[in-house]
Amino acid sequence: MKRLNLILVFVIFLLSASAVHADQRYEIAFPDLPSYKTLKCDFHMHTVFSDGQVWPTVRVDEAARQGLDAIAISDHIEYQPHKDDVSTNHNRPYELAVHRARMLDVLLIKAGEITRDTPPGHFNAIFLSDVNPLDTEDFVEVFKRAAKQGAFVFWNHQGWKGEEKGSWRDVHTTLYDGKLFQGMEVCNENRYFPTAHKWCLEKNLTMMGDSDIHTPDLRTKSLPEDHRTLTLVFAKKRTIPAIKEALQAGRTAAWFKQQLIGRKEFLAPLFDKCVTVECPHLRTKDAVFTKIRNDCDLDIVLKRTAGPGPVQIDLPARSVSLLKVDTKTPDEPLELKYSAINFIIAPGKCLDVMLKVPGK
Amino acid sequence: MKRLNLILVFVIFLLSASAVHADQRYEIAFPDLPSYKTLKCDFHMHTVFSDGQVWPTVRVDEAARQGLDAIAISDHIEYQPHKDDVSTNHNRPYELAVHRARMLDVLLIKAGEITRDTPPGHFNAIFLSDVNPLDTEDFVEVFKRAAKQGAFVFWNHQGWKGEEKGSWRDVHTTLYDGKLFQGMEVCNENRYFPTAHKWCLEKNLTMMGDSDIHTPDLRTKSLPEDHRTLTLVFAKKRTIPAIKEALQAGRTAAWFKQQLIGRKEFLAPLFDKCVTVECPHLRTKDAVFTKIRNDCDLDIVLKRTAGPGPVQIDLPARSVSLLKVDTKTPDEPLELKYSAINFIIAPGKCLDVMLKVPGK
Amino acid sequence: MKRLNLILVFVIFLLSASAVHADQRYEIAFPDLPSYKTLKCDFHMHTVFSDGQVWPTVRVDEAARQGLDAIAISDHIEYQPHKDDVSTNHNRPYELAVHRARMLDVLLIKAGEITRDTPPGHFNAIFLSDVNPLDTEDFVEVFKRAAKQGAFVFWNHQGWKGEEKGSWRDVHTTLYDGKLFQGMEVCNENRYFPTAHKWCLEKNLTMMGDSDIHTPDLRTKSLPEDHRTLTLVFAKKRTIPAIKEALQAGRTAAWFKQQLIGRKEFLAPLFDKCVTVECPHLRTKDAVFTKIRNDCDLDIVLKRTAGPGPVQIDLPARSVSLLKVDTKTPDEPLELKYSAINFIIAPGKCLDVMLKVPGK
Amino acid sequence: MKRLNLILVFVIFLLSASAVHADQRYEIAFPDLPSYKTLKCDFHMHTVFSDGQVWPTVRVDEAARQGLDAIAISDHIEYQPHKDDVSTNHNRPYELAVHRARMLDVLLIKAGEITRDTPPGHFNAIFLSDVNPLDTEDFVEVFKRAAKQGAFVFWNHQGWKGEEKGSWRDVHTTLYDGKLFQGMEVCNENRYFPTAHKWCLEKNLTMMGDSDIHTPDLRTKSLPEDHRTLTLVFAKKRTIPAIKEALQAGRTAAWFKQQLIGRKEFLAPLFDKCVTVECPHLRTKDAVFTKIRNDCDLDIVLKRTAGPGPVQIDLPARSVSLLKVDTKTPDEPLELKYSAINFIIAPGKCLDVMLKVPGK
Repeated sequence: MKRLNLILVFVIFLLSASAVHADQRYEIAFPDLPSYKTLKCDFHMHTVFSDGQVWPTVRVDEAARQGLDAIAISDHIEYQPHKDDVSTNHNRPYELAVHRARMLDVLLIKAGEITRDTPPGHFNAIFLSDVNPLDTEDFVEVFKRAAKQGAFVFWNHQGWKGEEKGSWRDVHTTLYDGKLFQGMEVCNENRYFPTAHKWCLEKNLTMMGDSDIHTPDLRTKSLPEDHRTLTLVFAKKRTIPAIKEALQAGRTAAWFKQQLIGRKEFLAPLFDKCVTVECPHLRTKDAVFTKIRNDCDLDIVLKRTAGPGPVQIDLPARSVSLLKVDTKTPDEPLELKYSAINFIIAPGKCLDVMLKVPGK
Repeated sequence: MKRLNLILVFVIFLLSASAVHADQRYEIAFPDLPSYKTLKCDFHMHTVFSDGQVWPTVRVDEAARQGLDAIAISDHIEYQPHKDDVSTNHNRPYELAVHRARMLDVLLIKAGEITRDTPPGHFNAIFLSDVNPLDTEDFVEVFKRAAKQGAFVFWNHQGWKGEEKGSWRDVHTTLYDGKLFQGMEVCNENRYFPTAHKWCLEKNLTMMGDSDIHTPDLRTKSLPEDHRTLTLVFAKKRTIPAIKEALQAGRTAAWFKQQLIGRKEFLAPLFDKCVTVECPHLRTKDAVFTKIRNDCDLDIVLKRTAGPGPVQIDLPARSVSLLKVDTKTPDEPLELKYSAINFIIAPGKCLDVMLKVPGK
Repeated sequence: MKRLNLILVFVIFLLSASAVHADQRYEIAFPDLPSYKTLKCDFHMHTVFSDGQVWPTVRVDEAARQGLDAIAISDHIEYQPHKDDVSTNHNRPYELAVHRARMLDVLLIKAGEITRDTPPGHFNAIFLSDVNPLDTEDFVEVFKRAAKQGAFVFWNHQGWKGEEKGSWRDVHTTLYDGKLFQGMEVCNENRYFPTAHKWCLEKNLTMMGDSDIHTPDLRTKSLPEDHRTLTLVFAKKRTIPAIKEALQAGRTAAWFKQQLIGRKEFLAPLFDKCVTVECPHLRTKDAVFTKIRNDCDLDIVLKRTAGPGPVQIDLPARSVSLLKVDTKTPDEPLELKYSAINFIIAPGKCLDVMLKVPGK
Repeated sequence: MKRLNLILVFVIFLLSASAVHADQRYEIAFPDLPSYKTLKCDFHMHTVFSDGQVWPTVRVDEAARQGLDAIAISDHIEYQPHKDDVSTNHNRPYELAVHRARMLDVLLIKAGEITRDTPPGHFNAIFLSDVNPLDTEDFVEVFKRAAKQGAFVFWNHQGWKGEEKGSWRDVHTTLYDGKLFQGMEVCNENRYFPTAHKWCLEKNLTMMGDSDIHTPDLRTKSLPEDHRTLTLVFAKKRTIPAIKEALQAGRTAAWFKQQLIGRKEFLAPLFDKCVTVECPHLRTKDAVFTKIRNDCDLDIVLKRTAGPGPVQIDLPARSVSLLKVDTKTPDEPLELKYSAINFIIAPGKCLDVMLKVPGK
């Protein structure tokens, strides 16, 4: 029995088998902005190398089939419950997954999660070149070592243990003043953090939305009604350096439970690229009938704020909706005033939008 | 108790209720050809006015939500099993449905089905201005009256009672020579007719695919794996006259059970618009890795005919597939030779296609 | 061309075709009570014979495939917007559908909807032998004629035009005192009527839940998360007379948007038949682990009211849920106190239930 | 920063989180036989401890939510591509998963895959007490050590590298004569092995069907049209020793792509428990109409072999089908002769069944 042959045979078999499993990619529909590409990213997830339950390549396969552009595997640095059985080299998840990521055209970012008791809480450092130096006792020193590598660092799930434990402490001021962290998760998996959202706006921190997934992700593809929590990154190119530049510049929105959470300056043009009012196909003496396209993966809901138009307009993802507007001047152009209730520009505040119906 | 008020109240209630039911349209994805719009059409269906089981407006609602551009309600002229209870005016289905069709932007074509025992069989006359004159005894006279109205006429489900009953008779020659019919259904609902397909090619008849639906269509939207049998019409514009011109010119394909059946001159450019090979994202020393987009609603399957590339490539509808091609010259452009097994250009014959992978 | 042969051929073809369409029945899972069969019924729906959009047989097909036991087609008596095209004999919907109902084993109940402006509103009279005599001007007289035929009559969608228009008037007292109506819809299609619910309890009226469907029902089968509004009838047998007896005795519950609305005396034993706590499969020193079966088509949600057990227990339809209960005496029997939040026994009031976990 | 506290906090958090993920169990419907329980088992799967991609507990979670009764994690003994990062103690997968299995009431069987080049091929040894002694060079010695532990051993995916490589060699005779293996996989994941099937019948080996899963199983629940390949075990009790006794006695069937493959002596009574013909609900002068229940998770298809009844009867999983039988003696009992085309009792041979329709 020759072990070498056996292994060769296996490698060939596995490659062809895995190619079958990973060869479909279902793109997520969010259009590019006029000046930026809209990249779908998840910067927080785990594998068997900390407390996750999958091998690192599984995270790449999940990302590819769900249409993600970039991911960061961010295993806990200080917390490794499987260490009796699994290597403790913090660079291994990246090293094991990067070839598969290149094959499947998923941008893989080297990362780690700085995992301390809350407060001060957990932080992800991404765009690292070597995760191992971050495994050191002194808390602020960890951030300095991340900064030395040019990392982008964000505070994870701020209120996950309650608002008191998630409150802003002196150490956060130290880190913030030293520009040692630059973003916060406004949502993580199934939870939204309004305090983090407020701080992002007040302190000019980048808004992040991540899955923090530990188990296998069972979704074969992303669906509007069942999607991962993600960060949309408005980047100049589809490259890792361009993502880093966009995060440093704060050009993001979080996609969370059928909502987009972000700054008005990005959500307003994104809405305009998602929603298109067509020229009316019928004008009667007291109404116009037109179609509205929604080309994105969000089931958009609009509530009227003033003037003509129905009280509510539903625009399901990737569909065309038929709209009747009552009007005594059906040949004139119309401006319909609505609030886009799943485009969130501040805690409790939605984006105001205008639907322009062309005249004859 | 005032009946008038009652009715007014009802009309208002019904209008608002029905608006809710019909306001989503899920477009079918088949791209336009370089010179033509690709319209999704169904020219054969029934209502309570012959042996169908729905009111004519239901056919419009079904078409709108499934993303159809045009339909013809083609109730049997000579066969009206509900005539004890329902009006026998052959124009009523059109008259009752046309306002709703205009509201929902479905092009509604006035039509009737000439329904004689097989042989000679059933024929649909569409683009009629008045269906009633076609309700006359003499078979050939019916066709002459249709012709006088400028109708386009096609032979329905040729082999539905077996090849013998569906064979070509003298009367068909009479009709064909007189240019009294111009097309044939190559498929109808769940059945494909290879003899009809052959005759369409030999005799230059237009290929049609229709649902012939009698019951309510339960599909909320068209899905690649569960769609209506339809005719794709390659028309200069999205208007009824343009559809008529395209049918007369033979510019169609039938969409039937995840297959497209049509002439090579239309299927070849349609394939090229549906499938896009991207620039490779990875070139190793013995392989290139690239992505192939399929932007249409057909789960395309390709079988290799010669040269490099995998034996089979699956391109699910509206997705991106990852492709690895083994090659010793990864920087050179590649031409991959495949047969598109669900693009049918003649009975038993598939479209040959070339996938061009760009070089470095 | 022989018309007779043609028609014979057609009839044969249609019979076989329709047999294909209607031959699957997906049963709805609600267990029988100790003394009664639990029948799934819909007593309110429309066809082309009033303002509906389908032929009467379609209502039978829908009922059969969705697993209903009994339906009443209840076309409006006084309101027939299609009367220019469709017969006005009020018995025709029943007559046209009854043979198909017998073939598919759906119990078809002859009925009509007494349709007056609101107030006094709409009422369904079911178990009629002849609907036509109810087409008379005098409102109370209609009810007397229904009573003479032994009909069961209920008030439809009481608050559909607002609480004021749905308020209890003298005429309702007249009808009620004369025992001329015996039930009320507590829910109709997408709406629940708490006032009707309250009156049913106060005045001992039978609670009804119906679809009031006008368009084709697109559901291929009933699903827990997408089902028709129905009336569960607790009957001695699966026959029309037994249903009538049960309605007269008030033995019903309404199934509405994943909730059951009914009297405690029926919901309590129904819950006990739906939910089974198994014997624990694991007892540790501080917890027991057991399984709970939910054999019905309701996604049951339980909230803890007191004592041990998790704060909330989700019991998805037709599944088994794993339950861990913390306890210091794992070998002793446990009694877990919960509120079944989708078993509604009065407006705003849920059924209290006890889960008994067996001891060792 | 106290590491100990941190870890305690984490453990609590993870336990509650994972409880949420794993608490639904969707049972697979295959009825018990008159004398045996029908257990749903998968005896072949992998984790990160060999070439799989998940942590061992994931295999338990998958089994629980899909309604399995028992699994064996059977990591390769001689093949461990992750050994640079993961422990090589062959008992670890079992040890890490067994507590979770007890919590979720999944019977976990300790096992290993004897992985040699083909021929002689791969074999699973299950019901081991210690896997490590099987990691030894001499091939036959491995089997002897398994036998000493009382293991049940079966030959995996016999023809996976072609019939020549899967042919029966002297070493198989040695093992077989020494009673060192007792079963064969007749199907594995997506493949069926007719030669293995034939040998099972000829040599009285137990038929197995397994998933051999390496990646995460994305199914949330088992569906008739998308299920894992499993072994149905007809056991006296739901315990590990009872499963072992049943496997030794050959009481199994493989569930593979909507088919059951097994011995006639088990498939015949299983069919009778799955399919119930009800008493006819309608007898006309030339036909009877009755209902047939299919209570299992197989979409059963029947083809008529002789006598009355439709040419084909489709019995979708967990549904009731309406059946019309033409007969001149509708009051007499009927015996309908069919072949159950997805009950496979030998390569190319289906089970003959009789449907008995009661007389009046």
